[in-house]
Amino acid sequence: MSNLTGNLAFTIENKTACIGILGLGYVGIPLGVSISKAGFKIIGFDVLESRVNQLNQGKSPIKHIADSEIATMIGVGFEATVDFSRASECDVLIICVPTPLDKTREPDLSFVTATMDSIAPYLREGQLLSLESTTWPGTTEQILLPYIENRGLKVGSNFYLVYSPEREDPGNAHYSTKTIPKVVGGHTKACLELGSKLYATFIDVVVPVSSTAASEMVKLLENIHRSVNIGLVNEMKIVADAMGLDIFEIIDAAATKPFGFTAYYPGPGIGGHCIPIDPFYLTWKAREYGLHTRFIELAGEINASMPQYVVDKTVRALNEVGKSLKGAKILALGIAYKRDVDDMRESPSVFVMELLRDWGADVAYSDPNVPVFPKMREHSFDLSSVKITPNSLQDFDAVILLTDHSDFDYEMILEFSPLLIDTRGKYRVRDKKVIKA
Amino acid sequence: MSNLTGNLAFTIENKTACIGILGLGYVGIPLGVSISKAGFKIIGFDVLESRVNQLNQGKSPIKHIADSEIATMIGVGFEATVDFSRASECDVLIICVPTPLDKTREPDLSFVTATMDSIAPYLREGQLLSLESTTWPGTTEQILLPYIENRGLKVGSNFYLVYSPEREDPGNAHYSTKTIPKVVGGHTKACLELGSKLYATFIDVVVPVSSTAASEMVKLLENIHRSVNIGLVNEMKIVADAMGLDIFEIIDAAATKPFGFTAYYPGPGIGGHCIPIDPFYLTWKAREYGLHTRFIELAGEINASMPQYVVDKTVRALNEVGKSLKGAKILALGIAYKRDVDDMRESPSVFVMELLRDWGADVAYSDPNVPVFPKMREHSFDLSSVKITPNSLQDFDAVILLTDHSDFDYEMILEFSPLLIDTRGKYRVRDKKVIKA
Repeated sequence: MSNLTGNLAFTIENKTACIGILGLGYVGIPLGVSISKAGFKIIGFDVLESRVNQLNQGKSPIKHIADSEIATMIGVGFEATVDFSRASECDVLIICVPTPLDKTREPDLSFVTATMDSIAPYLREGQLLSLESTTWPGTTEQILLPYIENRGLKVGSNFYLVYSPEREDPGNAHYSTKTIPKVVGGHTKACLELGSKLYATFIDVVVPVSSTAASEMVKLLENIHRSVNIGLVNEMKIVADAMGLDIFEIIDAAATKPFGFTAYYPGPGIGGHCIPIDPFYLTWKAREYGLHTRFIELAGEINASMPQYVVDKTVRALNEVGKSLKGAKILALGIAYKRDVDDMRESPSVFVMELLRDWGADVAYSDPNVPVFPKMREHSFDLSSVKITPNSLQDFDAVILLTDHSDFDYEMILEFSPLLIDTRGKYRVRDKKVIKA
Repeated sequence: MSNLTGNLAFTIENKTACIGILGLGYVGIPLGVSISKAGFKIIGFDVLESRVNQLNQGKSPIKHIADSEIATMIGVGFEATVDFSRASECDVLIICVPTPLDKTREPDLSFVTATMDSIAPYLREGQLLSLESTTWPGTTEQILLPYIENRGLKVGSNFYLVYSPEREDPGNAHYSTKTIPKVVGGHTKACLELGSKLYATFIDVVVPVSSTAASEMVKLLENIHRSVNIGLVNEMKIVADAMGLDIFEIIDAAATKPFGFTAYYPGPGIGGHCIPIDPFYLTWKAREYGLHTRFIELAGEINASMPQYVVDKTVRALNEVGKSLKGAKILALGIAYKRDVDDMRESPSVFVMELLRDWGADVAYSDPNVPVFPKMREHSFDLSSVKITPNSLQDFDAVILLTDHSDFDYEMILEFSPLLIDTRGKYRVRDKKVIKA
């Protein structure tokens, strides 16, 4: 073991290493909370001055992280900054920035490269750099490694590089950052050892794999698996519905098989920052090898068509009572992308609302977690959440349940909605006014 | 409750009902064993005189059912017969015949209709008929019901009809017929009640669903889920391999995620009587509704292409050592369709062997469970299982591991095979002579 490796190993073990977290969002903040609980001092970096100020004042920008957790973190030693030159103060740098798709559905690594551009001048001997952002296999070696080598550093002997995919699941009541096993791949054996040592200080189980590319692929496979399984049940929903069968009843019965079957449920599409996006990182990279990722494409196509399916069902249901969608008053119930979160990214509810508006409907929404329709890059509604009451419900021509938050009063919704389009299998009753979609 | 319902319920409860099992194969025999253990007398029906004689002599035709189990069943009261007129003696009739595909991949219900033709004249008031064969949603109502009504019987009042899909998993060490929950759908409420009562006498958990069509769909969804998930990992294997990654390592690491991911493993294709066949029953029926089942088609296509992938890998590996497949001596290891069974139905190993032969290879096989290559409807090899020894292994140009039986001596295989094509991820070593396929 070289002196540098030994030094870094030592400061990690005795928690005196300074940890830099680059990107203070849905991944970086819970990660910081966990690292801080282990006793490390942290410098958090973000380009958003407002975000940095908010955190330094002890306020959490994320619904499921309490202000008190930020305050505790500050107590242990946490400081947020927009000054990336301070990367030189850090012994460990962990990148947690978004990796979206661009408009033509190609990987947009600009947040990663912008981060590397900002910190490159301040990289120094004896640092460990970990990328946590989801990306295509090879990113760490093909994109990050050259930045480091261009600085004259030698990865594996005086600088250490790992990839360790984030596995955050906001709103998951059973697992937290600490209890979700963490996969780590290193550029060299020494990198892997130091990376594993770091994560083991604040995560219960560390899972080493043979390379950074392998660990990049692990994360993609996880989300491809979800995307494809949700795509499959969405297709099965359409078939079952045509045959007069309730797909939710079918899935629940199939789930009684104690092996060989895992229940996934259909819905109005897929949302969030992972499932609709990550799979296409592999699609893009596979093209370089002359390969097509046909399951990913098919899942993407079917999942993306579900908002239209929901709207078609609504048009049909209104038609049955002699109404057109044009001019109809429609209430969208739940606009966050999944139950009990406030995150709107890629929410299928928004796509449904846009289609309804295109058809000429008068659209309102209700979501206990989203009081005002937020400013979004691609979507715009000048709306606030409607309070649901027996009177307000009766005012609509149709109510569409899109996100099944725990806080909704489902009995009242059933009783007072004139027409109820259920995309979540919440209502198993046989009632003419409940339409399964 | 009518008198007839009451009578049948009573004889089921006190185990004096006579149970007829139609079709004495991989499903009917384990089912009979379970029913017999509950104390019922059974008449078993089959068209194969040899099968009937074998059973009446206390001999099991299935590897994983011991002769002693047949003998015990005979002790309680079991008799096999080719005389279908004896169906009139039975209070309950359970159909467990195969439902294959024909040559153009359409459902072949001829075993079901032949069974119904044989027993129809002997159906009588007060009987319960259950279909267990996997089939398209609507079969029980559209195919079975007319037979019964044509006999002047009234389903739900003096005759009872249910569909309850078999969930046998030969070789499963953790679950047996008794401990695998059983889904039941009835043509009427009375049918469902009697069907549930029957199955509850010998199965721990009965899962009632709302119709026979729903229970038919449950079984299809289970096997579609498996087919699609195996198809997905087979596609991912091809992509990972092109990128120099080991898909088995990736899957194992992904499986450490404690939610949202279930491990399925790739292989040389899919086999057995269920997974390659059942999904297309839905494909066929969906066409009636103008719908395409695209995930099923894609999974079928990818899974069916895997034997060719394995052969391509073999050709490539031989090429590297300057050999052609033509004239090469190739050993196929494992020809049963999955680990530790002797069942050859739809085994991908056979497709691999046929492709190898087409290329001009000199093909041999070794399988501890299949001493002689059996007579099959579509495939023919005049071969016996080769005994594996250091000497015999060295005699081959390449050895292809296709089915990873527990009985193989994997260390010896690795040591003495000149070239080893591994389709099961059994060898995680980095060794030039081990080719992952």
